[in-house]
Parts: sequence; structure tokens; C-alpha cells
Amino acid sequence: MQTNEQMLSAIENYLAQTEFPAEPELLYAPIGYSLAGGGKRLRPMLLTLSCGIFSDDVKQALPAAAAVEVFHNFTLLHDDIMDNAAVRRGKPSVHAKWGQNVAILSGDAMMIYAYRLLSSVPANLLPQVLSTFNTMALEVCEGQQYDMDFEQKPKVSVVEYMHMIELKTSVLLAGSVVIGAMLGGASDEDCRRLRRFAVELGLAFQLQDDLLDSYGDQRLGKAIGGDILEGKKTYLMITAMSHADEATREMLRTAYRDPALSDAEKIGKVKSIYDRLDVPRLTEQQIQLRFERALSILDTLSVAPSRTQRMRDYAMSLMDRKN
Amino acid sequence: MQTNEQMLSAIENYLAQTEFPAEPELLYAPIGYSLAGGGKRLRPMLLTLSCGIFSDDVKQALPAAAAVEVFHNFTLLHDDIMDNAAVRRGKPSVHAKWGQNVAILSGDAMMIYAYRLLSSVPANLLPQVLSTFNTMALEVCEGQQYDMDFEQKPKVSVVEYMHMIELKTSVLLAGSVVIGAMLGGASDEDCRRLRRFAVELGLAFQLQDDLLDSYGDQRLGKAIGGDILEGKKTYLMITAMSHADEATREMLRTAYRDPALSDAEKIGKVKSIYDRLDVPRLTEQQIQLRFERALSILDTLSVAPSRTQRMRDYAMSLMDRKN
Repeated sequence: MQTNEQMLSAIENYLAQTEFPAEPELLYAPIGYSLAGGGKRLRPMLLTLSCGIFSDDVKQALPAAAAVEVFHNFTLLHDDIMDNAAVRRGKPSVHAKWGQNVAILSGDAMMIYAYRLLSSVPANLLPQVLSTFNTMALEVCEGQQYDMDFEQKPKVSVVEYMHMIELKTSVLLAGSVVIGAMLGGASDEDCRRLRRFAVELGLAFQLQDDLLDSYGDQRLGKAIGGDILEGKKTYLMITAMSHADEATREMLRTAYRDPALSDAEKIGKVKSIYDRLDVPRLTEQQIQLRFERALSILDTLSVAPSRTQRMRDYAMSLMDRKN
Repeated sequence: MQTNEQMLSAIENYLAQTEFPAEPELLYAPIGYSLAGGGKRLRPMLLTLSCGIFSDDVKQALPAAAAVEVFHNFTLLHDDIMDNAAVRRGKPSVHAKWGQNVAILSGDAMMIYAYRLLSSVPANLLPQVLSTFNTMALEVCEGQQYDMDFEQKPKVSVVEYMHMIELKTSVLLAGSVVIGAMLGGASDEDCRRLRRFAVELGLAFQLQDDLLDSYGDQRLGKAIGGDILEGKKTYLMITAMSHADEATREMLRTAYRDPALSDAEKIGKVKSIYDRLDVPRLTEQQIQLRFERALSILDTLSVAPSRTQRMRDYAMSLMDRKN
């Protein structure tokens, strides 16, 4: 696995090789459908790259890499029910295609399947890998619950928001790199450092996602302004709310459901407030801060600098930063 | 833990001792609510008794015993959403009390929590215990899917029905006794025998449940005839359908939704057909066959007969059979 492309294709092959039973069809077909959905396989890539920092045998990381990807897809499957999302990666979501009961149950089976993949890590590492995975999985559920709580909450602070996205997004990246490092033979101290690296990287990644949703990026197929039209409490909205006067706050709170405005006008109105309050620059600053912090942690690992180069490059490409 | 009462109370204490985080409340409160719901703790009792066949240290079995009980309660939580059941053990079900999204997510967290409990088994046994647990958990999902499939299926055979209840009910009892036996230091051969014991016991138990729903038992708080009024495909209904002529089959198929009949009349009509076709006796025969088979397997274990006495007594009390 010399290149990232080869690594990605090894992960795809590993995910595709599992033969699910033909029956009961409504339990297993949605799992194959969900895993064939693609995506950039961020979590298994991070797990495998992390293993590669400490060991030249990265093939050993494939079952655990598949486990974190299957777990991630399980969370998407259940989140789509809770968020009532009909589309996932351009295709009907599982609950839209098969109904809610099938989505609940095949999601459950998918989580168990993730544990089955995980159970094939070397026996001597299993207790610590399993414990890391369990903590990570529970924290991801906490993040999803906070995310749903925030929809009902009138005011969410920046600190609360950062805590939520750390649980909902960063924790799964962190669990992935820590498990990869464990499999590669890393010390506890290096595992802790890599955990911090992935937490910061995940925060940078999520904030960039928030920024791109309103300010766009050609790479993304989705329409600009979706978060604004949904009235979502993103980093941009929360930052704007914390800097605005009361009249502006009221505008931000109500713009998305103002029947007098077209969608384009709603987006324009909210973005002009964002711009006036310097929100894009403040967000970009925060992204840059988190991302630099992540990269600097890589320098502290107890390995030769050359061994972290691939992880560094991958993190750069993820954030679309050139070296 | 001399008596079953002491064993049960050790299990209850172990389940109650976990302190869940206070936040996010909507994630963790339903788990505590669900686990405090009582029940006879059949699966952890079987696990602990099975461990006790091979070892005098049954305390070591408590974390795994708690894990199978938590897993069982997770399945009830999600099944209640899928079956739209508003009541569980005389209290509002989690989704009736907190809504569907909370029930999905706290159910997910509960399954992860079961794995966390399981992860504290001795490291040398963890790979085989985890693998047994994963297979069991996946089969339980298969059973639930078949159960839902059967609702839509015009004709279900006795063989298909027995396969479904083996997956939905027996497999979790089987996983419990096998894990208990592993922890007690049983041989692979004894684990296999205990698996068969629990599969047969589970079938006997489920068929008795079907019989009691229509023919009653003072111990059960629930009204007689619920399955008949729901038009459920139970062992009784499937056996009756396979023995009846076409006119009677049509009556069985439609009685539960005949607007001209009161509930009591529907139940009376179906039961008079059951009686005419000798269904109660055929069911009782099948229960007796499975139960005797289960007990006879206990005799084949490579231990002194006295060591299986408690398991035998427990199985008897479960089926309300006197020695």
C-alpha cells in the first residue's frame, strides 16, 4: 500500500468482500446498500495512516478500519431517521427507501457487524481496542443527543457548540487514530497525542463544513445556504448571535421562516449580517488555529519526522490546504 | 450466592450500581428507566447458573450477566418502536414516554453499554466471549426481522415459525449459557451441549408463552386472548391453520377483524376452533418434548450430576413444573 489511492482501494476491497446472508433480505440488503454508498472513507483512512506511523504492516489495520467505517455508516443510518433526511450521498436514505422499521433494525445489525469486524484484532490488543471503541461510540451518541437538544434550545453558546461537534465529529476521528496507533504498537503517550491531533483536526474539519455550507466550494455538489434555510445553529450562526445587537439577533432568528422572503433573499439577508459581523473571517481564524494545533501535535510524536509525513499530507488534502 | 434469590439480588445490585452521566439527560435517563423495569432477569440468571455448573466463583460472571440483560432490554426498547407498543411491564414504553428519536438513540447507547460491560471479562476469554455475543446479537436481529416479515406473509409454516422463535428468543438464552460456561472454564464440547439445552428450553418457553396468552395463567397480569385479537401468527394459530380445512382457515384468518363480533366473541370463536383441532394438546406436547430434551442434555455434561441440579431446578421453576 504505497499510495493513499492504494490504501483507499484496499479499504474498499475489504469492505466489499464481506458476504452478507441472503436472508432475511430486509435486514441485510440495507447494510450492503449503505456501505456501497462511497464517501471518502475518512475514518478508515485515518486509522490506517495512524497505524502506518508506527508500523510498516498497515494491512493488519484493515479489519479495524472497516469497523470504524461500518460504525460511522450505522450512525448515518439512524441519524437520517431522527433528522428525517430523505437523501444520503445523492441516493434515497435507507429509511426513505425501506421504511423506518427496516432502518432501525438494519442499523442495529450494522453496529453489531462493526463489533464483529473489531473482534478480529490481535487478542493481546483486543481489551484496549474494544474499550477505546466503546467510549468513542457512546460519546458519538452523546453528540447526536446534544445536536438534537440544541434544536429546541433558544440559546447555544460557542463553548457548548464546540463541545457538541467534538463529540459528534471529532471523537470518531480520535477513536480511529488511537486504534490505528495501538495496532501499530504506539506507546500510550503517543496514543494520547494522536487523540488530541484528531480532536483538533475534526473541529477544523467541522467548522470548515459549516463555512462552506454558506460560502460555498466548487467541490461540493450541494446548494449553498442549506444550513441558513433550515435555521441550523452552526458555528457561523452562533458566532453571529454572540456578536450581534438585539435587533440583529431577532433578524437572524427569524429570517429563515420569514414568508415574505424568497430562499435567495433569506440567504442573502443572513449572509450580509454574517459579513457585517466579520463572521467568515472569525470562522476562518478558528479553523486555521485548530488545524495548526493539530499539525503541531504530530511533531511531538516519538517517531522520526518522516513517518508522520503521510498523515500530514492527508490532513492537508482533507482541508484542501496546499503545502 | 447460596440461593437463587441471592443470585438475583446480586444481579440487580450490579445493574443498579452503574452511575450514568447526568448529561445529556435524554440519552441516559431512558437507560436507567428501562433497566429499573424489573422482569425476572432470566438471561443473567441463566448465565450465572451456567457459570456455576463449572466454577464455584460465580461472582466473576456478573459483568457478562449484566451485559446480556442490558442487551435484552435494548432489544425491547427498539422492538417497542417497531411494534408501536405503548406499554412495557405495566409502564409507558420509552418511545411512548420520550418519543421515537430518544428511543432510537438511547437504545443505541444501551447496546454500546452492553459491550462495555462485556469488555470487562478476563482478557484471555474476551475473544471467544465477544465472538459468541456478536453472533448471538446478529441472530436476534434476524429473528426480529423474520417476525416482522411474517406479519406481511399470508402463510407461515410451523418450521418457519420455529426457526423464527429460535432466533428471536432461544438464541439469546443460548448465548447467555455459553458465555457463562466459558467464564466457568467449560470445555468447548460442554459449551455446545449447553447451547442445545438453552435452544430447546427457549423453544419450550416461547411455546408456553403462546399457549398461556390464549389459555391463561393466574401468574400473568395480562388479559387472555391478546394474540388472537391482534391476529398474531402464534404457534397455536399456525398449527390450527395447518390442520384446518379451507373454510375453517378462512374463519381463523378473518375472525380477529370481524366487525360483527365483540372481542370476547372473537376469542371464543378462535378458541373453539383451536379446541376442535386439538391445538392446546398438540402445543402442550411440543412444549413437553422440547423441555424434556433440554433437561436430558444437562445429563450429558462432563460434570457430576449434582452440579447441574440448580440449573435443572431453575428450568423447572421457569416452566412452572414441579419436580
